[in-house]
Amino acid sequence: MTRLVLGVDPGTAVTGYGVVAFEGRTATLVECGVIRTNAKDPLPARLLNIHSGIAELIARHAPHTVAVEDVFYARNVRTTIVLGHARGVILLAAQQASLEIREYPPAEIKKAITGNGAATKEQVQFMVTRLLRLKNAPEPADASDGVAAALCACLATTLPKLSQLSPSPRAPR
Amino acid sequence: MTRLVLGVDPGTAVTGYGVVAFEGRTATLVECGVIRTNAKDPLPARLLNIHSGIAELIARHAPHTVAVEDVFYARNVRTTIVLGHARGVILLAAQQASLEIREYPPAEIKKAITGNGAATKEQVQFMVTRLLRLKNAPEPADASDGVAAALCACLATTLPKLSQLSPSPRAPR
Repeated sequence: MTRLVLGVDPGTAVTGYGVVAFEGRTATLVECGVIRTNAKDPLPARLLNIHSGIAELIARHAPHTVAVEDVFYARNVRTTIVLGHARGVILLAAQQASLEIREYPPAEIKKAITGNGAATKEQVQFMVTRLLRLKNAPEPADASDGVAAALCACLATTLPKLSQLSPSPRAPR
Repeated sequence: MTRLVLGVDPGTAVTGYGVVAFEGRTATLVECGVIRTNAKDPLPARLLNIHSGIAELIARHAPHTVAVEDVFYARNVRTTIVLGHARGVILLAAQQASLEIREYPPAEIKKAITGNGAATKEQVQFMVTRLLRLKNAPEPADASDGVAAALCACLATTLPKLSQLSPSPRAPR
Protein backbone atom coordinates (compact mmCIF):
# COMPACT_ATOMS: atom_id res chain seq x y z
CA MET A 1 0.00 0.00 0.00
CA THR A 2 1.37 3.36 -0.98
CA ARG A 3 1.50 6.03 1.67
CA LEU A 4 1.78 9.64 0.56
CA VAL A 5 3.41 12.23 2.76
CA LEU A 6 3.46 15.98 2.14
CA GLY A 7 6.48 17.53 3.83
CA VAL A 8 6.56 21.27 4.43
CA ASP A 9 9.34 23.65 5.42
CA PRO A 10 7.46 26.82 6.44
CA GLY A 11 8.67 30.29 5.52
CA THR A 12 6.97 33.63 5.04
CA ALA A 13 8.87 34.37 1.82
CA VAL A 14 9.46 30.81 0.59
CA THR A 15 7.69 27.69 1.82
CA GLY A 16 9.31 24.51 0.56
CA TYR A 17 7.35 21.31 0.03
CA GLY A 18 7.85 17.76 -1.14
CA VAL A 19 5.39 14.95 -1.78
CA VAL A 20 6.91 11.53 -1.19
CA ALA A 21 5.29 8.17 -1.89
CA PHE A 22 6.36 5.44 0.45
CA GLU A 23 5.79 1.79 -0.41
CA GLY A 24 7.32 -0.83 1.81
CA ARG A 25 10.86 0.46 2.24
CA THR A 26 11.01 2.41 -0.99
CA ALA A 27 10.50 6.15 -1.04
CA THR A 28 9.76 7.91 -4.34
CA LEU A 29 9.63 11.63 -4.96
CA VAL A 30 6.27 12.60 -6.49
CA GLU A 31 6.65 16.36 -6.62
CA CYS A 32 8.54 19.12 -4.92
CA GLY A 33 8.74 22.87 -5.17
CA VAL A 34 8.20 26.12 -3.33
CA ILE A 35 5.36 28.53 -2.62
CA ARG A 36 6.78 32.02 -3.01
CA THR A 37 5.08 35.12 -1.66
CA ASN A 38 5.61 38.70 -2.66
CA ALA A 39 7.68 40.64 -0.12
CA LYS A 40 5.73 43.77 -1.02
CA ASP A 41 2.41 42.23 0.00
CA PRO A 42 1.13 42.74 3.55
CA LEU A 43 1.44 39.71 5.83
CA PRO A 44 -2.27 38.67 5.65
CA ALA A 45 -2.08 38.46 1.83
CA ARG A 46 1.08 36.35 2.07
CA LEU A 47 -0.58 34.04 4.61
CA LEU A 48 -3.50 33.59 2.21
CA ASN A 49 -1.04 32.62 -0.57
CA ILE A 50 0.62 30.04 1.67
CA HIS A 51 -2.67 28.61 2.93
CA SER A 52 -4.12 28.37 -0.60
CA GLY A 53 -0.92 26.79 -1.92
CA ILE A 54 -0.88 24.08 0.74
CA ALA A 55 -4.63 23.48 0.43
CA GLU A 56 -4.19 23.06 -3.35
CA LEU A 57 -1.37 20.52 -2.86
CA ILE A 58 -3.50 18.59 -0.38
CA ALA A 59 -6.48 18.59 -2.76
CA ARG A 60 -4.33 17.46 -5.69
CA HIS A 61 -2.31 14.71 -3.98
CA ALA A 62 -4.61 13.65 -1.13
CA PRO A 63 -1.68 12.77 1.16
CA HIS A 64 -2.24 10.66 4.25
CA THR A 65 0.16 12.65 6.39
CA VAL A 66 1.50 16.20 6.49
CA ALA A 67 4.94 16.59 8.07
CA VAL A 68 5.80 20.14 9.08
CA GLU A 69 9.21 21.33 10.17
CA ASP A 70 9.08 22.96 13.57
CA VAL A 71 9.87 26.64 13.95
CA PHE A 72 13.57 27.18 14.33
CA TYR A 73 14.55 30.03 16.56
CA ALA A 74 15.76 32.71 14.19
CA ARG A 75 18.36 35.24 15.26
CA ASN A 76 15.57 37.74 15.39
CA VAL A 77 12.51 37.17 17.59
CA ARG A 78 10.29 39.14 15.20
CA THR A 79 11.29 36.84 12.31
CA THR A 80 10.51 33.79 14.40
CA ILE A 81 7.07 35.14 15.33
CA VAL A 82 6.22 35.91 11.71
CA LEU A 83 7.35 32.38 10.82
CA GLY A 84 4.89 31.16 13.47
CA HIS A 85 2.09 32.90 11.51
CA ALA A 86 3.06 31.01 8.33
CA ARG A 87 3.27 27.74 10.21
CA GLY A 88 -0.16 28.39 11.73
CA VAL A 89 -1.91 28.58 8.35
CA ILE A 90 -0.05 25.47 7.12
CA LEU A 91 -1.18 23.43 10.14
CA LEU A 92 -4.68 24.84 9.62
CA ALA A 93 -4.81 23.65 5.99
CA ALA A 94 -3.77 20.15 7.09
CA GLN A 95 -6.28 20.10 9.94
CA GLN A 96 -9.09 21.36 7.66
CA ALA A 97 -8.46 18.28 5.50
CA SER A 98 -8.46 16.06 8.63
CA LEU A 99 -4.99 14.73 7.82
CA GLU A 100 -2.50 13.17 10.19
CA ILE A 101 -0.07 15.92 11.19
CA ARG A 102 3.50 15.36 12.35
CA GLU A 103 5.79 18.10 13.56
CA TYR A 104 9.54 17.67 13.65
CA PRO A 105 12.27 19.97 14.95
CA PRO A 106 15.04 20.53 12.38
CA ALA A 107 17.51 18.41 14.39
CA GLU A 108 15.14 15.44 14.38
CA ILE A 109 14.78 15.63 10.60
CA LYS A 110 18.56 15.75 10.19
CA LYS A 111 19.01 12.82 12.55
CA ALA A 112 16.35 10.67 10.84
CA ILE A 113 17.94 11.24 7.44
CA THR A 114 21.68 11.30 8.16
CA GLY A 115 21.93 9.77 11.63
CA ASN A 116 23.32 13.07 12.91
CA GLY A 117 21.14 15.82 14.38
CA ALA A 118 23.85 18.38 13.67
CA ALA A 119 24.38 17.38 10.02
CA THR A 120 25.14 20.12 7.51
CA LYS A 121 22.67 21.17 4.81
CA GLU A 122 24.94 19.41 2.27
CA GLN A 123 24.85 16.11 4.18
CA VAL A 124 21.05 16.26 4.35
CA GLN A 125 20.80 17.04 0.62
CA PHE A 126 23.22 14.20 -0.16
CA MET A 127 21.11 11.69 1.76
CA VAL A 128 17.80 13.02 0.39
CA THR A 129 19.22 12.56 -3.13
CA ARG A 130 20.41 9.06 -2.29
CA LEU A 131 17.29 7.88 -0.45
CA LEU A 132 15.12 8.97 -3.38
CA ARG A 133 17.59 7.73 -6.05
CA LEU A 134 17.73 11.16 -7.70
CA LYS A 135 20.49 12.49 -9.94
CA ASN A 136 20.59 15.83 -8.13
CA ALA A 137 19.30 17.26 -4.89
CA PRO A 138 15.83 18.80 -5.21
CA GLU A 139 16.09 22.50 -6.07
CA PRO A 140 15.79 25.09 -4.61
CA ALA A 141 17.14 24.25 -1.14
CA ASP A 142 13.78 25.06 0.49
CA ALA A 143 12.10 22.39 -1.66
CA SER A 144 14.77 19.95 -0.50
CA ASP A 145 13.96 20.83 3.13
CA GLY A 146 10.28 20.07 2.48
CA VAL A 147 11.24 16.72 0.96
CA ALA A 148 13.45 16.01 4.00
CA ALA A 149 10.49 16.61 6.34
CA ALA A 150 8.40 14.14 4.32
CA LEU A 151 11.21 11.55 4.40
CA CYS A 152 11.54 12.04 8.15
CA ALA A 153 7.87 11.13 8.62
CA CYS A 154 8.32 8.04 6.45
CA LEU A 155 11.49 6.92 8.23
CA ALA A 156 10.06 7.65 11.67
CA THR A 157 6.96 5.55 11.07
CA THR A 158 8.70 2.64 9.37
CA LEU A 159 11.63 2.14 11.68
CA PRO A 160 11.33 -1.51 12.66
CA LYS A 161 10.41 -2.04 16.26
CA LEU A 162 12.90 -4.05 18.29
CA SER A 163 10.47 -6.96 18.56
CA GLN A 164 10.14 -7.12 14.78
CA LEU A 165 13.87 -7.11 14.09
CA SER A 166 15.18 -10.18 12.38
CA PRO A 167 18.91 -10.63 11.94
CA SER A 168 20.01 -8.94 8.74
CA PRO A 169 21.44 -11.44 6.20
CA ARG A 170 24.44 -9.17 5.83
CA ALA A 171 25.09 -8.71 9.52
CA PRO A 172 27.83 -10.76 11.13
CA ARG A 173 26.37 -13.51 13.29
CA MET B 1 -23.18 55.51 7.95
CA THR B 2 -22.45 52.79 10.45
CA ARG B 3 -19.02 51.26 10.39
CA LEU B 4 -18.54 47.87 12.03
CA VAL B 5 -15.20 46.83 13.43
CA LEU B 6 -14.30 43.38 14.74
CA GLY B 7 -11.49 43.66 17.28
CA VAL B 8 -9.50 40.58 18.20
CA ASP B 9 -7.05 39.84 21.00
CA PRO B 10 -5.35 36.60 19.84
CA GLY B 11 -4.56 33.76 22.21
CA THR B 12 -4.09 30.03 21.81
CA ALA B 13 -6.24 29.21 24.84
CA VAL B 14 -8.57 32.23 24.82
CA THR B 15 -9.08 34.63 21.91
CA GLY B 16 -11.07 37.70 22.91
CA TYR B 17 -13.23 39.60 20.45
CA GLY B 18 -15.52 42.58 20.31
CA VAL B 19 -17.75 43.93 17.55
CA VAL B 20 -18.20 47.68 17.76
CA ALA B 21 -20.50 49.82 15.60
CA PHE B 22 -19.22 53.29 14.99
CA GLU B 23 -21.53 56.02 13.76
CA GLY B 24 -20.19 59.54 13.62
CA ARG B 25 -18.50 59.88 16.98
CA THR B 26 -20.61 57.33 18.81
CA ALA B 27 -19.32 53.83 19.40
CA THR B 28 -21.76 51.08 20.39
CA LEU B 29 -20.90 47.57 21.53
CA VAL B 30 -22.67 45.01 19.34
CA GLU B 31 -21.25 41.82 20.76
CA CYS B 32 -18.21 40.60 22.63
CA GLY B 33 -16.96 37.30 23.93
CA VAL B 34 -14.18 34.77 23.73
CA ILE B 35 -13.26 31.75 21.63
CA ARG B 36 -11.93 29.12 24.00
CA THR B 37 -9.92 26.11 22.88
CA ASN B 38 -9.31 22.89 24.73
CA ALA B 39 -5.82 22.73 26.22
CA LYS B 40 -5.86 18.95 25.68
CA ASP B 41 -6.30 19.32 21.91
CA PRO B 42 -3.24 19.37 19.68
CA LEU B 43 -2.30 22.78 18.29
CA PRO B 44 -3.71 22.22 14.75
CA ALA B 45 -7.17 21.40 16.21
CA ARG B 46 -7.04 24.54 18.35
CA LEU B 47 -6.04 26.64 15.34
CA LEU B 48 -9.03 25.24 13.44
CA ASN B 49 -11.32 26.27 16.34
CA ILE B 50 -9.95 29.80 16.32
CA HIS B 51 -10.13 30.15 12.52
CA SER B 52 -13.71 28.80 12.41
CA GLY B 53 -14.76 31.06 15.27
CA ILE B 54 -13.41 34.20 13.62
CA ALA B 55 -14.79 33.19 10.20
CA GLU B 56 -18.21 32.67 11.81
CA LEU B 57 -18.12 36.12 13.45
CA ILE B 58 -17.15 37.71 10.13
CA ALA B 59 -19.95 35.89 8.31
CA ARG B 60 -22.52 36.89 10.95
CA HIS B 61 -21.58 40.56 11.38
CA ALA B 62 -19.96 41.41 8.02
CA PRO B 63 -17.59 43.95 9.60
CA HIS B 64 -15.78 46.45 7.42
CA THR B 65 -12.54 46.23 9.38
CA VAL B 66 -10.78 43.65 11.52
CA ALA B 67 -8.43 45.09 14.16
CA VAL B 68 -5.95 42.58 15.56
CA GLU B 69 -3.73 43.15 18.54
CA ASP B 70 -0.09 42.62 17.70
CA VAL B 71 1.84 39.80 19.31
CA PHE B 72 3.24 40.85 22.63
CA TYR B 73 6.56 39.36 23.51
CA ALA B 74 5.76 36.82 26.17
CA ARG B 75 8.28 35.90 28.83
CA ASN B 76 8.74 32.66 27.01
CA VAL B 77 9.77 32.59 23.33
CA ARG B 78 7.88 29.33 22.76
CA THR B 79 4.65 30.93 24.02
CA THR B 80 5.16 33.90 21.74
CA ILE B 81 5.71 31.65 18.70
CA VAL B 82 2.59 29.61 19.44
CA LEU B 83 0.68 32.90 19.77
CA GLY B 84 2.01 33.77 16.29
CA HIS B 85 0.30 30.61 14.97
CA ALA B 86 -3.05 31.75 16.42
CA ARG B 87 -2.59 35.24 15.04
CA GLY B 88 -1.77 33.76 11.63
CA VAL B 89 -5.12 31.98 11.29
CA ILE B 90 -6.99 35.09 12.51
CA LEU B 91 -5.34 37.30 9.88
CA LEU B 92 -6.06 34.56 7.33
CA ALA B 93 -9.79 34.52 8.15
CA ALA B 94 -9.93 38.32 7.71
CA GLN B 95 -7.97 38.19 4.45
CA GLN B 96 -10.16 35.37 3.09
CA ALA B 97 -13.14 37.71 3.56
CA SER B 98 -11.19 40.54 1.84
CA LEU B 99 -11.64 42.82 4.85
CA GLU B 100 -9.56 45.82 5.80
CA ILE B 101 -7.04 44.62 8.39
CA ARG B 102 -5.40 46.81 11.01
CA GLU B 103 -2.74 45.63 13.40
CA TYR B 104 -1.96 47.49 16.61
CA PRO B 105 0.71 46.88 19.23
CA PRO B 106 -0.73 46.73 22.77
CA ALA B 107 0.81 50.11 23.69
CA GLU B 108 -0.88 51.79 20.74
CA ILE B 109 -4.27 50.43 21.80
CA LYS B 110 -3.73 51.65 25.35
CA LYS B 111 -2.65 55.06 24.12
CA ALA B 112 -5.61 55.46 21.75
CA ILE B 113 -8.07 54.61 24.51
CA THR B 114 -6.55 56.17 27.62
CA GLY B 115 -3.99 58.60 26.20
CA ASN B 116 -1.24 56.61 27.92
CA GLY B 117 0.63 53.76 26.22
CA ALA B 118 1.61 52.35 29.60
CA ALA B 119 -1.92 52.41 31.07
CA THR B 120 -2.92 49.59 33.41
CA LYS B 121 -5.49 46.96 32.44
CA GLU B 122 -7.92 48.65 34.87
CA GLN B 123 -7.52 52.06 33.20
CA VAL B 124 -8.19 50.52 29.79
CA GLN B 125 -11.27 48.70 31.10
CA PHE B 126 -12.52 51.90 32.73
CA MET B 127 -12.24 53.83 29.46
CA VAL B 128 -13.71 51.01 27.36
CA THR B 129 -16.70 50.97 29.72
CA ARG B 130 -17.04 54.74 29.52
CA LEU B 131 -16.57 55.09 25.76
CA LEU B 132 -19.26 52.49 25.15
CA ARG B 133 -21.56 53.77 27.94
CA LEU B 134 -21.67 50.35 29.61
CA LYS B 135 -22.54 49.60 33.22
CA ASN B 136 -19.61 47.24 33.62
CA ALA B 137 -16.45 46.37 31.73
CA PRO B 138 -16.94 43.59 29.18
CA GLU B 139 -16.21 40.20 30.73
CA PRO B 140 -13.98 38.20 30.68
CA ALA B 141 -10.89 40.45 30.43
CA ASP B 142 -9.89 38.91 27.08
CA ALA B 143 -13.22 40.00 25.58
CA SER B 144 -12.53 43.50 26.89
CA ASP B 145 -9.13 43.44 25.14
CA GLY B 146 -10.84 42.50 21.86
CA VAL B 147 -13.27 45.41 22.31
CA ALA B 148 -10.32 47.72 23.03
CA ALA B 149 -8.68 46.72 19.73
CA ALA B 150 -11.92 47.53 17.88
CA LEU B 151 -12.21 50.90 19.64
CA CYS B 152 -8.59 51.66 18.76
CA ALA B 153 -9.36 51.17 15.06
CA CYS B 154 -12.40 53.45 15.38
CA LEU B 155 -10.51 56.16 17.25
CA ALA B 156 -7.48 55.90 14.98
CA THR B 157 -9.54 56.37 11.82
CA THR B 158 -11.76 59.14 13.11
CA LEU B 159 -9.21 61.39 14.74
CA PRO B 160 -9.76 64.70 12.97
CA LYS B 161 -6.92 65.76 10.73
CA LEU B 162 -5.31 69.07 11.63
CA SER B 163 -6.67 70.71 8.46
CA GLN B 164 -10.21 69.69 9.41
CA LEU B 165 -10.03 70.99 12.96
CA SER B 166 -12.48 73.74 13.78
CA PRO B 167 -12.29 75.48 17.16
CA SER B 168 -14.29 73.54 19.68
CA PRO B 169 -17.25 75.58 21.03
CA ARG B 170 -16.11 74.70 24.55
CA ALA B 171 -12.50 75.60 24.00
CA PRO B 172 -11.30 78.95 25.24
CA ARG B 173 -10.76 81.38 22.35
